[in-house]
Amino acid sequence: MPLGRVLIGDTTQHALPDQLLQPFGEQVARDSERRLKPLETACAQEAFTPLVKEIENAGGEIHARTLDARKEDQVISFLGDADKHAPLEVCIFNVGANVNFPILDTTERVFRKVWEMACYSGFLAGREAARLMLPRGQGNIFFTGATASLRGGSGYAAFASAKFGLRAVAQAAARELGPKNIHVAHLIIDSGVDTEWVRQRRIEALGPNALDDPDLLMPPSSVAESYWLLYQQPRSAWTFELEIRPFGEKW
Amino acid sequence: MPLGRVLIGDTTQHALPDQLLQPFGEQVARDSERRLKPLETACAQEAFTPLVKEIENAGGEIHARTLDARKEDQVISFLGDADKHAPLEVCIFNVGANVNFPILDTTERVFRKVWEMACYSGFLAGREAARLMLPRGQGNIFFTGATASLRGGSGYAAFASAKFGLRAVAQAAARELGPKNIHVAHLIIDSGVDTEWVRQRRIEALGPNALDDPDLLMPPSSVAESYWLLYQQPRSAWTFELEIRPFGEKW
Amino acid sequence: MPLGRVLIGDTTQHALPDQLLQPFGEQVARDSERRLKPLETACAQEAFTPLVKEIENAGGEIHARTLDARKEDQVISFLGDADKHAPLEVCIFNVGANVNFPILDTTERVFRKVWEMACYSGFLAGREAARLMLPRGQGNIFFTGATASLRGGSGYAAFASAKFGLRAVAQAAARELGPKNIHVAHLIIDSGVDTEWVRQRRIEALGPNALDDPDLLMPPSSVAESYWLLYQQPRSAWTFELEIRPFGEKW
Amino acid sequence: MPLGRVLIGDTTQHALPDQLLQPFGEQVARDSERRLKPLETACAQEAFTPLVKEIENAGGEIHARTLDARKEDQVISFLGDADKHAPLEVCIFNVGANVNFPILDTTERVFRKVWEMACYSGFLAGREAARLMLPRGQGNIFFTGATASLRGGSGYAAFASAKFGLRAVAQAAARELGPKNIHVAHLIIDSGVDTEWVRQRRIEALGPNALDDPDLLMPPSSVAESYWLLYQQPRSAWTFELEIRPFGEKW
Repeated sequence: MPLGRVLIGDTTQHALPDQLLQPFGEQVARDSERRLKPLETACAQEAFTPLVKEIENAGGEIHARTLDARKEDQVISFLGDADKHAPLEVCIFNVGANVNFPILDTTERVFRKVWEMACYSGFLAGREAARLMLPRGQGNIFFTGATASLRGGSGYAAFASAKFGLRAVAQAAARELGPKNIHVAHLIIDSGVDTEWVRQRRIEALGPNALDDPDLLMPPSSVAESYWLLYQQPRSAWTFELEIRPFGEKW
Repeated sequence: MPLGRVLIGDTTQHALPDQLLQPFGEQVARDSERRLKPLETACAQEAFTPLVKEIENAGGEIHARTLDARKEDQVISFLGDADKHAPLEVCIFNVGANVNFPILDTTERVFRKVWEMACYSGFLAGREAARLMLPRGQGNIFFTGATASLRGGSGYAAFASAKFGLRAVAQAAARELGPKNIHVAHLIIDSGVDTEWVRQRRIEALGPNALDDPDLLMPPSSVAESYWLLYQQPRSAWTFELEIRPFGEKW
Repeated sequence: MPLGRVLIGDTTQHALPDQLLQPFGEQVARDSERRLKPLETACAQEAFTPLVKEIENAGGEIHARTLDARKEDQVISFLGDADKHAPLEVCIFNVGANVNFPILDTTERVFRKVWEMACYSGFLAGREAARLMLPRGQGNIFFTGATASLRGGSGYAAFASAKFGLRAVAQAAARELGPKNIHVAHLIIDSGVDTEWVRQRRIEALGPNALDDPDLLMPPSSVAESYWLLYQQPRSAWTFELEIRPFGEKW
Repeated sequence: MPLGRVLIGDTTQHALPDQLLQPFGEQVARDSERRLKPLETACAQEAFTPLVKEIENAGGEIHARTLDARKEDQVISFLGDADKHAPLEVCIFNVGANVNFPILDTTERVFRKVWEMACYSGFLAGREAARLMLPRGQGNIFFTGATASLRGGSGYAAFASAKFGLRAVAQAAARELGPKNIHVAHLIIDSGVDTEWVRQRRIEALGPNALDDPDLLMPPSSVAESYWLLYQQPRSAWTFELEIRPFGEKW
């Protein structure tokens, strides 16, 4: 019976879901047992049309739908539907809300909304994924962190607060669910992820050759690769927190 | 002109505000310059009647009022009133919301309310205190943390998430406001605070002699003493995070 | 041309080197390009006779020799010889010295020796591996940590001091060598590793069924697997510190 | 009966001992009970002639002598002599060895010597102070850390390794000795300390007005003040680690 994989992403890292499939896709190519594993994806706004086509062309199966991850009922029905289709094996949460404001200019609305997107919705997704996985005694719940998960930098009161909060949810879930054979992990991406916007900023800051070495940015495929490494870990040696950065990054 | 001190506390650590005054009170006894400094206090529910009497009997001045610290307009008017009375010099935030639930039993309502009490209201208090202090180029904003500020333990998804989030607010505020001469600090109390409820649990767990050494619990006066130490620091050697525990505590 | 892999281990985790080869060995079975990669191993005392036989029987190539890793000249000649045989691609340092003494009973001889074994020799190995790798602009240097790398527990003044020190060496090396395309990582094993001695202690503490689930201990093969995951990371997403523990471990 | 205080410092922070006395000195002025407390000091090279004169002129008592803090017998006899003179109440360890070398240029001699000065000698001082304090069931042992206690920066393999190691000694000692009523603390100075050399560098980097605000550097007196704060803490609320930095410092 096929197992289900779910990604709850957002449009700010639009490129990610597309690439996230890559390692799973490679695996499909090699491993007939795993072929045709269904993947459910959801994002806050646009559907993943190109992704859907690519997966289907490769002989895979994918279901994409729009989701407001801050709504408890929507999260419950999304995960429940996915689980009915194929028992939930992996749930990846990757909703971001990176903003920077001086503290005096951080409105209560911004503070609350950033928390709802980056922390509260992660709690909902993690809790509901656990609820589906626990009766079967296995599963993987992966949360996505950032530099701001560990550091409340100047101007990041809202974003770091939400990211710190999400990390605490992940820790508590890992300590509670790990002994029940559910691997909860927190991937910290200590770098900008390669998007058009980040590329433009690099060129402005570092000149026209700034992008000559693509490995100096974090490609979405490397984020996906990192989830894949976490997924492959034997349960005798699980990692809770995996921090990744490009080889040339200052830290 | 007298300077103002404000405490935003809650009723779960009912004993705290009473004791918080102690070091200030001692100072009053010694130091005539500082006598009669006004202190404003606010808490979520009951007024601080015994405290008010004690301070007034000692010749001090105190104003207590009820506050829902989760309401932006109430926080603004409370701090604004205090500041009109005497320019705000110290703002201590100590609203807690310590709960423990398995993650599946953590309702979205609990998760949200704990965050509103322990994190969001701290953001509001810190931001508004900063707004009043910045034009005068000085001030002290102290947030209160707990063991759960650093560790997302099993059953603490809600509480640790809020406490992690508050710590991030404090860090971001410290990095932004420190160079503007406002001392932002985060006091981590790595221990139960001595209340009737904690005493009963100790006796049940450790037997009738469990309370023979009062220094094995954290007395509210020691929390107050720790704020006092932070307050006394020269700006050439400020501490952001101060972790305290009783001498016999395991850590 | 084959690339060289080196392990500097010790006899206290006697089983490790044997298993370390497993992922490389599996790879050999799959991937003819990588077949017959030479592996050099060194340990403080006994030679790895059984390991050598196993690898050679599998059609691999291995060279084992005895080494006092605290002697600069021996480390230089060991790594130099290995590099002449095949350019050094991976250097894993895994010398331990886990002891527990009350601080008053920690002799200066013990304190110094533990440091020499667990920290100083790691510095030597890392520095000399880097010296060989830098001219070729690539390589992997992996250090092995323990719970005591992050926590100075009671009775661990000597061991934790050495392990903290090794972690600092790894951090400094990672920050300096990462931008030069050398992946330096620090693997923290937050668990006892499965050896006969640990098994006996588990049975004494938890009863005859304590070992029924082998995944509750850290098998040496899982340590090896973790190094393998680090080795596989794309340089656009390197991890410096990887902490691993069995799924049922308290943390 | 007077209680004894000991400082084991070095000449690189030559100004420190002088200032360390200041808070004790102020206390002397106020508090006749504490007047004339003897203070023993030791440093690696020069005697503290000016300091001795200042203290004696103020009516205090001080004994200074030269010490190689890396020699177990010298540490034992120094602390033993001090304790005979007046029972040891406070022992402050502040030997530094801040060097920066690329890892390939870090000789084994430098690596070892930095460790002996900044870590090994701290272990000796802490252990021997504990040995004298334990029978009396009280005391204070304070170690001095730096930014490199928490971060192995590029070029700091030797220094950070020693400072990490000292921190582990302090942690292990605190966990073991705390419940026995000995306050062990680790003061992290996250800043350059104000010395002639640092002043020159600031002027070169920031121009002639760089020193206009003395609070942007860490004056030795603020280091002393921080020890004083630690010393004043009630045992119901001890801090293990105190990190200090000037208000304008980036972190």
